[in-house]
Amino acid sequence: MLFLGTRQMHLVVRPLSTVKTSLFYSTSSHVPARAMVYAQYGKPSEVLRVHKHALPDIKPQDVHIRFLAAPINPADCNQVEGVYPIKPPFNTSLGSDEPVAVGGNEGVAEVIALGDQVKGFNVGDKVVMAQAGRGTWRTHAALPASEVQLLPGFNNQVSLVHAATLTVNPSTAYRMLNDFVELKEGDYVIQNGANSAVGQFVIQIAHAWGLKTINVVRDRPNLDELKEYLTSLGATHILTEEELSKRETRSKLKGWLDGRKLRLALNCVGGKNATELGRYLDHEGKHVTYGAMSKQPMAVPAAPLIFKDVSYHGFWVSRWTDTHSRQEREAMFGDLIDLIKQGKLREPVWEKVSWKLNASEQEIETAFKEAVDKGITGFGKGKQIVFFED
Amino acid sequence: MLFLGTRQMHLVVRPLSTVKTSLFYSTSSHVPARAMVYAQYGKPSEVLRVHKHALPDIKPQDVHIRFLAAPINPADCNQVEGVYPIKPPFNTSLGSDEPVAVGGNEGVAEVIALGDQVKGFNVGDKVVMAQAGRGTWRTHAALPASEVQLLPGFNNQVSLVHAATLTVNPSTAYRMLNDFVELKEGDYVIQNGANSAVGQFVIQIAHAWGLKTINVVRDRPNLDELKEYLTSLGATHILTEEELSKRETRSKLKGWLDGRKLRLALNCVGGKNATELGRYLDHEGKHVTYGAMSKQPMAVPAAPLIFKDVSYHGFWVSRWTDTHSRQEREAMFGDLIDLIKQGKLREPVWEKVSWKLNASEQEIETAFKEAVDKGITGFGKGKQIVFFED
Repeated sequence: MLFLGTRQMHLVVRPLSTVKTSLFYSTSSHVPARAMVYAQYGKPSEVLRVHKHALPDIKPQDVHIRFLAAPINPADCNQVEGVYPIKPPFNTSLGSDEPVAVGGNEGVAEVIALGDQVKGFNVGDKVVMAQAGRGTWRTHAALPASEVQLLPGFNNQVSLVHAATLTVNPSTAYRMLNDFVELKEGDYVIQNGANSAVGQFVIQIAHAWGLKTINVVRDRPNLDELKEYLTSLGATHILTEEELSKRETRSKLKGWLDGRKLRLALNCVGGKNATELGRYLDHEGKHVTYGAMSKQPMAVPAAPLIFKDVSYHGFWVSRWTDTHSRQEREAMFGDLIDLIKQGKLREPVWEKVSWKLNASEQEIETAFKEAVDKGITGFGKGKQIVFFED
Repeated sequence: MLFLGTRQMHLVVRPLSTVKTSLFYSTSSHVPARAMVYAQYGKPSEVLRVHKHALPDIKPQDVHIRFLAAPINPADCNQVEGVYPIKPPFNTSLGSDEPVAVGGNEGVAEVIALGDQVKGFNVGDKVVMAQAGRGTWRTHAALPASEVQLLPGFNNQVSLVHAATLTVNPSTAYRMLNDFVELKEGDYVIQNGANSAVGQFVIQIAHAWGLKTINVVRDRPNLDELKEYLTSLGATHILTEEELSKRETRSKLKGWLDGRKLRLALNCVGGKNATELGRYLDHEGKHVTYGAMSKQPMAVPAAPLIFKDVSYHGFWVSRWTDTHSRQEREAMFGDLIDLIKQGKLREPVWEKVSWKLNASEQEIETAFKEAVDKGITGFGKGKQIVFFED
């Protein structure tokens, strides 16, 4: 009955047969949508601006979605600066005078309308973008159904923060633990930058899967506090970079491993510390780089490559997404959502950025740019997450 | 009839039914065999000595072989020095007072007798060792048939030099060109140390397979001569290390590649030059280290690992042999022998070392140690190859 009601609601804009919509559908072709766009690369707080536009009439293979929440990731800012390998499309499809791109790479949205040829989606479904670079800093989007993807098992046990940030950090941790080395329960993984956003998910997912972690962090004044926090996430052992480079650490690690082989090292730091990680890898061990916080290349010695079959790889979740099927990605989302429901993955530390649907462009831009600056400089109290709110 | 004759010859030593031997069988349990052995690691010319022993009566699953030719490879010398990852077994199985190991890792031998449970071999077959580290600097050996392996297609078109040196250098080149990246005719491979023993086989095998090579060599006074030589082997392009590091080389290479992707780099040098090779790799390119002549580690930047899925590997033919089936190794030998018969693989530059079966221990040791010193220092006129001669 409700469903029928919504169909009738839309009789005003297009033939009944082509549209299925939800009660939440507060934006139609009459209601303006807004997007945070940029016409050229540059400093995000300088080049970003709000663009107001109408959603088009729905096409047979399209969905209309409204965004619920989207983070401001460091990589999103690099993208606006033009220094990220994924370049978003610049075009006038939103009716702008000059070609623009929409910022943001991840976020969670809700399906509010379906073209009549769309299969596999229902109005009200929570979705994420099928690829990076398609723009998530916006209230609404009209796009082919193939460009969004379901979150299997999503329900109200899963927070919007978790859903909005599922596709980058937890997915990166999941894939790196799953795809490079076949690990059995009780096996060890070593990682540096263990308190990074991905590092924390590595700890939690490894812990949930029965794996053990050796976590390397930089020394700092509040080290004990950090150790306590990482331990509470499930970290097995924690070492500082200084400790890792000491000779006696080798025998300490040997004791921890107790005969098990160390075959996976995860590196987001680079430089000397990344080289150190490699030293601890056993035969056929894999060293996986997903970041370079120190901005230093690492030195790779020849002997472990040749005689121990140690190999060095990189991981980038956007490439993984582009080279794997929707089914594989959905299966991963399903697993992650199960872990979230079981309370095994904490939300990242985050700070709310409110994007009121009825605010003025000026208000939205001001709040957003402040958040972008925090996102770049790390002066915020955690990950900046934009909530699109009535 | 001849065969019957050899059986009768051996009636004196053991029951007819257990032995099949060849006319070449000049050593029985009465005839002394000799091996170049060492009781402790050290400088080869100091620790090596000739050990004289009798071949045992043949066991049901054993073969007796006589060696025809065996090279003195640099790695063999490292092994005697105790600095090579493969440690040979030290034992008294040859009747020595103290435990000794037999030097040498590769060589070609001929089957001279078969235990009665041995299948798949005939007297007269040419064989190589099934694994490294089993000792090839010896006139004869008695060992399980499982420890030797046939050379499919071997005939008198294949020189003893080729056969004696098939398992290390040509096999390394073959595997590196075959196992890491799926290359199609016309695809390019880049390698440094292109004039190394393996490098020359890379050029020749690539050429035979329709692949193109970009070959990096050190600058030297006789560069033109070297270029001419490598070109005669089939090298497509030759660059000095200095040229490789120049900015304009990128556009030169782009012209050569003409739209093809460069996805395989072979490195036996290390250091800065190995890093340079990596810079030229396209997406999903693989960088394979099989040597470290410069003794310098290479710097690996993070961006190509993360964003281009470039990965760094090592290759060691001994490990390949240990982790792959006899069938796969035989198939490779068959392919290499076909190439040799077609005149597509030249013998390495070599110098003969004569090991006369009837010489005195003193004479053998003197000639051998002189060759070992040349093998280590590279002052010889090429690879030192020991011929075991009547």
